[in-house]
Amino acid sequence: MSSVLLSRDLLEFQLFDWLQIDRDGDIDRETAMAMIEMASRLAEDAFLPHYRAADTEEPQMTADGATVHPTVKAALRQYAEMGLFGASFPEDLGGLGLPSALASGVHAIFASANVSTAGYAMLTGANARLITQFGTERQIEAFALPEIEGRWFGTMCLSEPQAGSSLADITTRAQADGEDEFGPRYRISGNKMWISGGDQDASENIVHLVLAKAAMPGEPLPQGAKGISLFIVPKILPDGTRNDISLAGLNHKMGNRGTTNCLLNFGENEGAIGWRVGEEGQGLAQMFMMMNEARIGVGMGAAVLGYRGYRHSVAYAKDRVQGRKLGSRDKASVPIIEHADVRRMLLQQKAYSEIAIAICLFCSHLQGQNSEESELLLGILTPIAKSWPSEFGLVANDLAIQAHGGCGYTRDFDVEQLWRDNRLNPIHEGTTGIQGLDLLGRKILRSDGAPLAALKARIAQTALQAEQGETFAPQARIVREYWAEIDATIEGLSAADGMTAYYDATLFLRAFGHAVAAWIWLDLSLSAERAGSPKRLTEARYVLRFFTESELPLARSWLSVVNQHLDTAALAPDEVFE
Amino acid sequence: MSSVLLSRDLLEFQLFDWLQIDRDGDIDRETAMAMIEMASRLAEDAFLPHYRAADTEEPQMTADGATVHPTVKAALRQYAEMGLFGASFPEDLGGLGLPSALASGVHAIFASANVSTAGYAMLTGANARLITQFGTERQIEAFALPEIEGRWFGTMCLSEPQAGSSLADITTRAQADGEDEFGPRYRISGNKMWISGGDQDASENIVHLVLAKAAMPGEPLPQGAKGISLFIVPKILPDGTRNDISLAGLNHKMGNRGTTNCLLNFGENEGAIGWRVGEEGQGLAQMFMMMNEARIGVGMGAAVLGYRGYRHSVAYAKDRVQGRKLGSRDKASVPIIEHADVRRMLLQQKAYSEIAIAICLFCSHLQGQNSEESELLLGILTPIAKSWPSEFGLVANDLAIQAHGGCGYTRDFDVEQLWRDNRLNPIHEGTTGIQGLDLLGRKILRSDGAPLAALKARIAQTALQAEQGETFAPQARIVREYWAEIDATIEGLSAADGMTAYYDATLFLRAFGHAVAAWIWLDLSLSAERAGSPKRLTEARYVLRFFTESELPLARSWLSVVNQHLDTAALAPDEVFE
Repeated sequence: MSSVLLSRDLLEFQLFDWLQIDRDGDIDRETAMAMIEMASRLAEDAFLPHYRAADTEEPQMTADGATVHPTVKAALRQYAEMGLFGASFPEDLGGLGLPSALASGVHAIFASANVSTAGYAMLTGANARLITQFGTERQIEAFALPEIEGRWFGTMCLSEPQAGSSLADITTRAQADGEDEFGPRYRISGNKMWISGGDQDASENIVHLVLAKAAMPGEPLPQGAKGISLFIVPKILPDGTRNDISLAGLNHKMGNRGTTNCLLNFGENEGAIGWRVGEEGQGLAQMFMMMNEARIGVGMGAAVLGYRGYRHSVAYAKDRVQGRKLGSRDKASVPIIEHADVRRMLLQQKAYSEIAIAICLFCSHLQGQNSEESELLLGILTPIAKSWPSEFGLVANDLAIQAHGGCGYTRDFDVEQLWRDNRLNPIHEGTTGIQGLDLLGRKILRSDGAPLAALKARIAQTALQAEQGETFAPQARIVREYWAEIDATIEGLSAADGMTAYYDATLFLRAFGHAVAAWIWLDLSLSAERAGSPKRLTEARYVLRFFTESELPLARSWLSVVNQHLDTAALAPDEVFE
Repeated sequence: MSSVLLSRDLLEFQLFDWLQIDRDGDIDRETAMAMIEMASRLAEDAFLPHYRAADTEEPQMTADGATVHPTVKAALRQYAEMGLFGASFPEDLGGLGLPSALASGVHAIFASANVSTAGYAMLTGANARLITQFGTERQIEAFALPEIEGRWFGTMCLSEPQAGSSLADITTRAQADGEDEFGPRYRISGNKMWISGGDQDASENIVHLVLAKAAMPGEPLPQGAKGISLFIVPKILPDGTRNDISLAGLNHKMGNRGTTNCLLNFGENEGAIGWRVGEEGQGLAQMFMMMNEARIGVGMGAAVLGYRGYRHSVAYAKDRVQGRKLGSRDKASVPIIEHADVRRMLLQQKAYSEIAIAICLFCSHLQGQNSEESELLLGILTPIAKSWPSEFGLVANDLAIQAHGGCGYTRDFDVEQLWRDNRLNPIHEGTTGIQGLDLLGRKILRSDGAPLAALKARIAQTALQAEQGETFAPQARIVREYWAEIDATIEGLSAADGMTAYYDATLFLRAFGHAVAAWIWLDLSLSAERAGSPKRLTEARYVLRFFTESELPLARSWLSVVNQHLDTAALAPDEVFE
């Protein structure tokens, strides 16, 4: 069986022929491909082999904290030795200085091999980036650099038992306690829930970035999101002593088990020591930087899980011989890839996962640019990069099981674990429902319209190019028409009564995601044509045909539901649910 | 928390107010409800408590065969003591003589509590029914009666390692070996795969119904489906000795683990002894009777898993306090059932699962009637009863996880297991793809049109009734219009070139399923109006509104894809999948 990991060819095509990440001369294709080659080998050798073991022998809670499978630790040490924790960081911070889309693509190879092991690196990178962006020089040196080296790992501590998605309601308290070389010092106390990597024995130290509300003893906590500040709270303090943080429990998850998921108690004794990052009250705004990076990371994880299921499915469908082709009088059985229904399941998986990868790489590419346009695009695309791969990568994994028949339902085949692992992604880092409210509210209806305008300008550009050619002109028209329907939907929603516009925000998100997906793939198809690779062009055409013929009609029906401004569920009386 | 099991109220409404199973005087409502009450108590006390244990402590393979969790055995013994293995069998065969829809509803209570334990009973009933239908008096007495008593369990042995869905290719051989009191005797040899309950230590004996091809040594096996015959092959022979059947392995499944799933080798030594049921070459036709009953049973299992996830979701959403209502300035957090997106997820789960239950009860009701109409309806509805609940019950379980947020992804909440358990249902007893080919091919395009005509006559009847009233007239028109679109689609497909009509058979199945679902719920809504229960009427209205407003537009888009007669995936060149 050929490799099931994210393929070098696909990355080369999307990064160079499409995104042209070498255009600014920051990287050349040869160097990049050598890096991708090395990463693929390490992923194959050190990440893939313990994919199943990290699931069956999940993290344990001991008196000393959480322990992970020893192979997890060994794999991440090799990852650190290759310098990959610092892949996207500048060289003066000890990083490799890779363009952000390349760094994202390289990380995605590891995620395709073992999403829960790679998860530690994803979180650590996003954590270090926040500190390098908002921290003081001393904070960067003390806390971010060891993360960039891969000796320490990072977490994000947001949720609390009483406040999952509603961060304004957190009650973790930070009490001012002087100032030292690391900045304004506080004593932190409170309980944090759902902390990925919250404890583990794979790194020398753990840098928690904790949201809390500053208040003196006896003082009430400041209300709402504006009262939230951000703190660096390391597991082991700079003087080598243990901070006042205890592991109160591990969550036992359905999948993604290799990444520990913890309930942490801060400050049960003298109060955990933490240093404020930035100003008081800036916590949530700063944390959004980390969250946004993590959201794209989650989307990419979901995308490559979908992709890997696709690769497994193709291998199985070529190998498994059963039944005859529809209408054939031939007596010999055929590989099941010959069956129309199986072939449809493969093309669907390919479309969802390769488009999802492209969306995430595009967003990572935007992260590396510092233009007004890239900011606007990133704002409106992040909820899509998080939710669309999470939703359709999971559908792809469902189809991968179906394409395997009974085998897909057994633990002898990886597709069942891929499906379980991927089910996390529509939940963490902001549920799909939250992404829908973010897109429709903050990014569209309650914004000044600039993010959507920036996106539409890009789409118009792609469509124009496509319509000037011959190969994709019909599909370009379909994509443009569908975007016009999105416009009309938004116009209708902006005129809707009260909160009605938001009742179907989740469905709007899905429909908008399909519009982005169609545009992205059209744009990428133009690159395939330019690149002159017959194979890439054929693939691009078939995926684009499938998507415009079979998926956009569905997306239109989602819009038609949104356009009704229904309040049936929202206003259904309680007795309906009794 | 109120019970999460299939509710007595729902069953009472669907069985009596809607299906009117007491119309013929075979049962009175009071007796039936007492039976449902008793069953609910037993399900709650003996089936529900080991739901999780049967998953975590799965069946083991020992030198002596497969062992199941001891609670499984104890629960099924109590089930037998209540006479429930014989629920739907006539009293002269030792059964309780319940109307088939009532028997199905009673069984569904147990499936909602513990689908894998209840699975043994479902298979045993379908097995015994086949023997009572096609077996000789002596075969019935020797093999079916102990199953009806619940002392012996039954299996269906169809698939083989090289032949899953394509039964024509089986190679299990049956060699004539004289005749005795149990009928024509054969020696059976071959390997059977995916056998649910194929071995276990919960019953005194196991009655395997085995498909095999009769041939003398050296003779080639008869080709194709017409060469298949059916044999009774008990684990323990009537003389008390072990038959030549060995357990070659257990499959380790993602869910539904309490039901063993076995690879069985028949006749590795002297040949397993089996007795033919019916004539040579009649095997597949006879087995279809058992398969059809099992398909409706699988659909019902999927439906009640969806329903139970819904009940868990409602309980959680009422209990969990977080965030504020959209647009509210109130500072207090609210139970998440107040959030529009959560409420939509609840209504969606309710619609899918309660409609799915109704479809399955309707089919079970048809099984108990012996009219030409009921035969025709059952033929065309069985693929729907199998596939629609399997597909949308699973969607319901996915929504149940989402409604639970992070908790839903942990093994502390049953919804994750429900989702894993339910994932089996689109696969076994004929995958969704197979159901699509069955519906579109055998039941529609290649039939004389009678099954569809019978169904449409019933639908017209319901629509007419609804349009004569006021309450549901608008929805009735929507349902009728959608059925007209189905008609147009079928007309188009019947004129399609070559095999193109079948390329999207799976999507056609889904669209047809939604048409059936809409009709079934409209019909049931009329009963709710007649019954005069304000609560039932409110529920029926909201589900019907939701389904016609939010689901039928989606179904229309599926039809619009089918109507294009696409061959994109089927004819995509191999290089697309490389």
